[in-house]
Amino acid sequence: MTKRIYDFSEGTGEMRKLLGGKGANLAEMSRLGLPVPTGFTITTPTCINYLENNESVSQLWSELDGAIERLEQRTGKHFDDPTNLLLVSVRSGSQFSMPGMMDTILNLGLSDETVEGFAELTGDAHFAYDCYRRLLQMFGEVVYAIPKIKFDNIIARQEEQSKKNVTDFSLTELKTIITKFHKLYEEHGLVFPQTATEQLRIAVTAIFESWNNKRAMTYRELHNIDHNLGTAVNVQSMVFGNSGEESGTGVVFSRNPSDGENELFGEFLINAQGEDVVAGIRTPQPIASLAEEMPNMYHELKKLVEQLETHYHDMQDIEFTIEDNRLYLLQTRNGKRTNQAALRIAVEMAEERLITKEEALLKVTPDMVNSTLHDVFSEESKARATLFSKGLGASPGAASGKICFDSEAAKALHLAGDPVILVRNETSPDDIEGMITSQAIVTNHGGMTSHAAVVARGMGTCCVTGCGNLVIDEEAGTVSVDRVTLEEGDWVSVDGTSGVIYLGVLEKESITTNHHLTTLLEWADTVSDLKVRANAETPQDLQTAMDFGAVGVGLARTEHMFFKKERLQEIRKVVLTEDEAEKQEALEKLLDYQRSDFEKMYHIVREKPMVIRLLDPPLHEFLPSSSKEIEVLAKEIEWDVSKLTNRIHSLEETNPMLGHRGCRLGVTLPELYQVQVKAIILSAMTLRRKGVPVVPEIMIPLVAEKEELSQIKAQLIKVIDDVMGREKCPFPYEIGTMIELPRACLIADDLAKEADFFSFGTNDLTQMTYGFSRDDATKFLSEYLEKGIISHDPFQTIDEHGVGELIKLAVARGRSIKPDMVIGVCGELGGDPTSIKFFQSIGLDYVSCSPFRVPLARLTAAQVGLMANE
Amino acid sequence: MTKRIYDFSEGTGEMRKLLGGKGANLAEMSRLGLPVPTGFTITTPTCINYLENNESVSQLWSELDGAIERLEQRTGKHFDDPTNLLLVSVRSGSQFSMPGMMDTILNLGLSDETVEGFAELTGDAHFAYDCYRRLLQMFGEVVYAIPKIKFDNIIARQEEQSKKNVTDFSLTELKTIITKFHKLYEEHGLVFPQTATEQLRIAVTAIFESWNNKRAMTYRELHNIDHNLGTAVNVQSMVFGNSGEESGTGVVFSRNPSDGENELFGEFLINAQGEDVVAGIRTPQPIASLAEEMPNMYHELKKLVEQLETHYHDMQDIEFTIEDNRLYLLQTRNGKRTNQAALRIAVEMAEERLITKEEALLKVTPDMVNSTLHDVFSEESKARATLFSKGLGASPGAASGKICFDSEAAKALHLAGDPVILVRNETSPDDIEGMITSQAIVTNHGGMTSHAAVVARGMGTCCVTGCGNLVIDEEAGTVSVDRVTLEEGDWVSVDGTSGVIYLGVLEKESITTNHHLTTLLEWADTVSDLKVRANAETPQDLQTAMDFGAVGVGLARTEHMFFKKERLQEIRKVVLTEDEAEKQEALEKLLDYQRSDFEKMYHIVREKPMVIRLLDPPLHEFLPSSSKEIEVLAKEIEWDVSKLTNRIHSLEETNPMLGHRGCRLGVTLPELYQVQVKAIILSAMTLRRKGVPVVPEIMIPLVAEKEELSQIKAQLIKVIDDVMGREKCPFPYEIGTMIELPRACLIADDLAKEADFFSFGTNDLTQMTYGFSRDDATKFLSEYLEKGIISHDPFQTIDEHGVGELIKLAVARGRSIKPDMVIGVCGELGGDPTSIKFFQSIGLDYVSCSPFRVPLARLTAAQVGLMANE
Repeated sequence: MTKRIYDFSEGTGEMRKLLGGKGANLAEMSRLGLPVPTGFTITTPTCINYLENNESVSQLWSELDGAIERLEQRTGKHFDDPTNLLLVSVRSGSQFSMPGMMDTILNLGLSDETVEGFAELTGDAHFAYDCYRRLLQMFGEVVYAIPKIKFDNIIARQEEQSKKNVTDFSLTELKTIITKFHKLYEEHGLVFPQTATEQLRIAVTAIFESWNNKRAMTYRELHNIDHNLGTAVNVQSMVFGNSGEESGTGVVFSRNPSDGENELFGEFLINAQGEDVVAGIRTPQPIASLAEEMPNMYHELKKLVEQLETHYHDMQDIEFTIEDNRLYLLQTRNGKRTNQAALRIAVEMAEERLITKEEALLKVTPDMVNSTLHDVFSEESKARATLFSKGLGASPGAASGKICFDSEAAKALHLAGDPVILVRNETSPDDIEGMITSQAIVTNHGGMTSHAAVVARGMGTCCVTGCGNLVIDEEAGTVSVDRVTLEEGDWVSVDGTSGVIYLGVLEKESITTNHHLTTLLEWADTVSDLKVRANAETPQDLQTAMDFGAVGVGLARTEHMFFKKERLQEIRKVVLTEDEAEKQEALEKLLDYQRSDFEKMYHIVREKPMVIRLLDPPLHEFLPSSSKEIEVLAKEIEWDVSKLTNRIHSLEETNPMLGHRGCRLGVTLPELYQVQVKAIILSAMTLRRKGVPVVPEIMIPLVAEKEELSQIKAQLIKVIDDVMGREKCPFPYEIGTMIELPRACLIADDLAKEADFFSFGTNDLTQMTYGFSRDDATKFLSEYLEKGIISHDPFQTIDEHGVGELIKLAVARGRSIKPDMVIGVCGELGGDPTSIKFFQSIGLDYVSCSPFRVPLARLTAAQVGLMANE
Repeated sequence: MTKRIYDFSEGTGEMRKLLGGKGANLAEMSRLGLPVPTGFTITTPTCINYLENNESVSQLWSELDGAIERLEQRTGKHFDDPTNLLLVSVRSGSQFSMPGMMDTILNLGLSDETVEGFAELTGDAHFAYDCYRRLLQMFGEVVYAIPKIKFDNIIARQEEQSKKNVTDFSLTELKTIITKFHKLYEEHGLVFPQTATEQLRIAVTAIFESWNNKRAMTYRELHNIDHNLGTAVNVQSMVFGNSGEESGTGVVFSRNPSDGENELFGEFLINAQGEDVVAGIRTPQPIASLAEEMPNMYHELKKLVEQLETHYHDMQDIEFTIEDNRLYLLQTRNGKRTNQAALRIAVEMAEERLITKEEALLKVTPDMVNSTLHDVFSEESKARATLFSKGLGASPGAASGKICFDSEAAKALHLAGDPVILVRNETSPDDIEGMITSQAIVTNHGGMTSHAAVVARGMGTCCVTGCGNLVIDEEAGTVSVDRVTLEEGDWVSVDGTSGVIYLGVLEKESITTNHHLTTLLEWADTVSDLKVRANAETPQDLQTAMDFGAVGVGLARTEHMFFKKERLQEIRKVVLTEDEAEKQEALEKLLDYQRSDFEKMYHIVREKPMVIRLLDPPLHEFLPSSSKEIEVLAKEIEWDVSKLTNRIHSLEETNPMLGHRGCRLGVTLPELYQVQVKAIILSAMTLRRKGVPVVPEIMIPLVAEKEELSQIKAQLIKVIDDVMGREKCPFPYEIGTMIELPRACLIADDLAKEADFFSFGTNDLTQMTYGFSRDDATKFLSEYLEKGIISHDPFQTIDEHGVGELIKLAVARGRSIKPDMVIGVCGELGGDPTSIKFFQSIGLDYVSCSPFRVPLARLTAAQVGLMANE
């Protein structure tokens, strides 16, 4: 026969599934010999059996009778015995904490008759009737669903009439209230049961049935909790915090849940029962004052709290009651805490050797790390604010500013000292200067990996993309959502974490890094095989990456070097000119520009590895598109406007993502890659001559054929040999390739014969594998997610079945040729925890992500390593 | 010791490598007992040994002496013996026919002294001196490279002086010529050798050395012929076609090489030596007249020719000589022929049971089939024409017409009765009407699988794409290449096979299908496991496909149904309207249009399988782009112009190829697919009620996730069940998917659980696997081909290593779930011979190609099947 009921002494903390969380904790505390009022737990399967099949009730009731009998023996008290009355609390408790279900009934066992005996027994009639009044109200509300307001109104009217607070009611007034409560029951066609057993059985079945109420079911569906778990019911002999001035009740945390400081934190009320603390009628006192009012109690509590924290290896949230100078613990659980606190608690507990460093690493989630690095809007200001639009939280942070619609306006506003929010349909490399001067970027199109998102994350700038309902009229200088139209200069606030745009200015809370994070991540690095590098574009990015502890740079993009005005001029000449001398002159200028850039970069990164990707975007991105710009350029290069227009048109592409870019430029315009590599080698040489052993890592993008790689590589080696020979300064370097096309994965064995290293570009690889353009896919991806066609956005979390298989295959084929080749990933997925786990599992050497994601990635890398070793 | 010389009687026709082609044929004919003048062959390795190492010459000369001795014994004649003179011919002959090398020396063995004896011996001094004069000239030209013109001038001057033709020279005149030829030798510091052995040795080494002359080497490099093969030398006793009126020489083909008719074809000259037939001094007579002039000879020749054709199982090209009423064969080889002739000969030989049907199928190349289906420009007119531009021969054919730059102009010109050549940067579905009315289409951008190319091939219209040097100024209405500028209305001629654009009008030769092709392809179908279907868009396409013998339709595109003006209106409403009633009304109209289209299609295809692909292109292709059109549409749907403009803008895509298209439309706008499927089922029902057992095959494009397929399929089945239920007419149908994304290949096992069939879309699959847009890749693909980065355009011939591996993997995974699933390929590669071979090898059931490629594909399928079985 299945055992339906466990006395606390029969259970342990491991039995959460059978006894529920609360029951298991009560059993565990009992087992530890802590002062827990005695009691028992009805198991969770009993609930399910009850709900599915009523016939087992008689069995349950007989077991329940037995449990009560044992309880009576242990306490020496008895149900319905006015001379020695046993009162109990009844609480639900499922495996997972779950709002929506019935909660707590205290003082169960009192009746019109026994309340009198209880008054005599305790010698405190006021206390006894106060207990009964509470029972009537809780039972009515919780079991019979009589609206709380009706009970509250009865009390309120009496308070008004008596001109005093309910806690100060006279015995007569309490009795009046009790009579009125009984009448309230009658009005609902109910009678308050007058025996303890009847009260208990009704309460137990009501708790069982609440498992299937609508709120609970909705919650379970939302959180993917099994509907067949059921809830346990905990029955515990009452202790009374409301039995006088030497009694009380409270809640205490073993550490400060807000900032994590190692101090008791909490509050208590003298002469009160549990719900008073929550009800807010009386203001609880901070726990520190218990040390003055009841020093013995305080020290005993402190000792017990420490014992519990040590036992559970985590910060505890504890309910306690003091009855006539005796301390009881009613509940303990791992306490909720802010992300800041979680971090500090994990680190300090490890420093106190309460937990190991490995345990500390597993106690903090990557999201926690991330949220500690960015501004947030205060909860109050968000609650008050008016929503304007909602998109994808593409780069976390919080910013308020004046909207504008183009880079020029952004720069002007910025110069005028105003914070700027750049609002565009989408951004392009042309918008870089506007983006740099903006506090936040908002786009109508594009997803989590659009240009705006990638650049913003790289800069640590708050960004929301894919706000599909924005209608931007650039000419009129307005942006509308339904009937709300904003003009340039209007204020909005952008939440880059949630993706919400608010009207007006919201209050910010600023959070900065701290030494706890630094410490934790240092530990992370020591346990992790998977290294974390950063993707970076500017010296500022690189500095951020180094500050955040990246072991190197997995992807240094070089495009930005060409977008500054005076450089754009030169690259345009290289692309367009038919005059060889002019081309050479332009290339020389570009060499100088890049050499100085690379030197700056190497000065920051020094001997740490830095993979520099050669030019990737299509040539037409460098050419002007407006007729005015074309006119200017035509004049400068002495071309007919029509000739230039035709040339620009001939470079336009239907699908630039699949067009003339990446190493295809290296093939058709070899001078560009040659000048880039010359600049890399010369700047590395400068560092080397200063004693910094830089080893340049040069990466060729978008390779689909082995010959692309071998021909380009051969040309570059020639350039390098030339430079090193002329300068008489040879040093090692590596030439590798980006694996970002399905075909590159398939021929990875061939490519490994040429490449010194591989780096997966997951953005392009995902685009090609799915045939999704990351810029355009937002138009249908949200619908795909809604309809359950895809379970997650593959640009945010690795598609293991498709893209992942190609990557796995490429790693295997690559390593079949070069078993020790360094292989990393430098796409956006490098900063996503689930993806990092996958990359660790297939044996990559590093992930590379945007600088602001480095801390998160370092932690995740450590965690997946630890979990893999378990 | 290696044998350096083989008498004809020692060799066979199989020994081409050792004896060269000519030597092997002479040996084979000797072996067959045919009247071949006796002789021997110096082997090819002897040539290589000579060239690499001179010391072996003495060995060779001693073997040569032995061979001559044997020859003297067989003929009873002797070198340098004026009483019984042996004369020989000396010819080169390598394994492969190779222009550029030394050819033929006749009459070798004559000298100033022996010519007199020869005159006495033959009793014909004129004949003897004529032979000597020929020897001096040939030897001087061929061995000593004395310019031919110098010999010709000597003869010409004498002809002028004597006022008669060289053939009519008197003995004195011949002797004068001979004296002058000797002087010519002297002028070059040379002496004509006066013994036969010396002449022969010099001739042999000269032939050996000619193996390495520049023309021969260049030819070998161009045709990938091994430089180490060497040439053989054939020495054969002379027979004399110039020994009187009962002698002669000629060339005869066993069948007509121009049209393939089974008749003797060729020409001959009475009293002439070989080179006279070619020299053109005298006009040869047609072979038929030999029947009148020398009926015995004619009948003997006819018999021998038949014997040779039967022996070689192929049409023969034969050189013969008649000496005093005796017939000799000097050479035979497989004859060159036109494609038309090749076809007819193969079929008729099989019908005559000279060869098997399988052998007939292997005798014709796919290119031959293809070239017989299209117009071509005559060779003469091409030789005279001026080239304007050159691109890719995207759709074969030849057309001349007036150029114009847009559809409107094309229609206007067409209505005016002019042939039109549409010239555009690229074409889009908007251009369809212009393309239909054009004789040829020329584009600046795009490759072999661009929109223009695909549509043109579908229509059988001549098309050249990727003419990168065209500069089109649409506004000015001009197209320029360098300094040549053409205006609208100017004439050009377009060769869709070679990709060349000529100025002006060229002469065309029209070639049509014939019953030989039909017969051959019927045989092809019986031996081929791989079936051939067609890709088609219009009823006209379908008719062409059926006429060309497709067993079904592998890809019926439905896009065209929406591009006609009145339909465009309705689809635009479906996409844009916010009024549900208006949307439904538009869908109803579209249903009617499509139903009537599908009915027409089923009436042509009947019960043959037809895979209908549901709508594939991005929605914005259906929307207007010019501001005028937008205005018109806005008025019609009662929208603000700015609202419509914004909506259209919001549908625009950066990379439409990777955008909101294919089954993604089926997910986000399910009504479209539903109405298509309803139309398909209703039209199939109409045919079924007439007794035609149509089984609709519905294909869902661009699937990347199993859920896309299963959700869309579920909706469609519901629609189908509804229709069939309401009409009380259930019948079988299939729902399959196109595999055209790398991810679809990887999850083919999952997809096979839902799909009734697979069809590979190689265009998209190649685009995604390489990350090449077929529209944009022309910009760099030609350079890639030039630099040897890719060996072929992967849009024209399967990339076995990359795309091919994905396809193979998908076939294996799909069949692991459904071993008998029908799997085909419907991309452009379905019509490419190399690709068809690959598809056959991996077990596909069918290939589907454009209608005009069906004959080629049927032949290729048969050939790869036959070769696989060998």
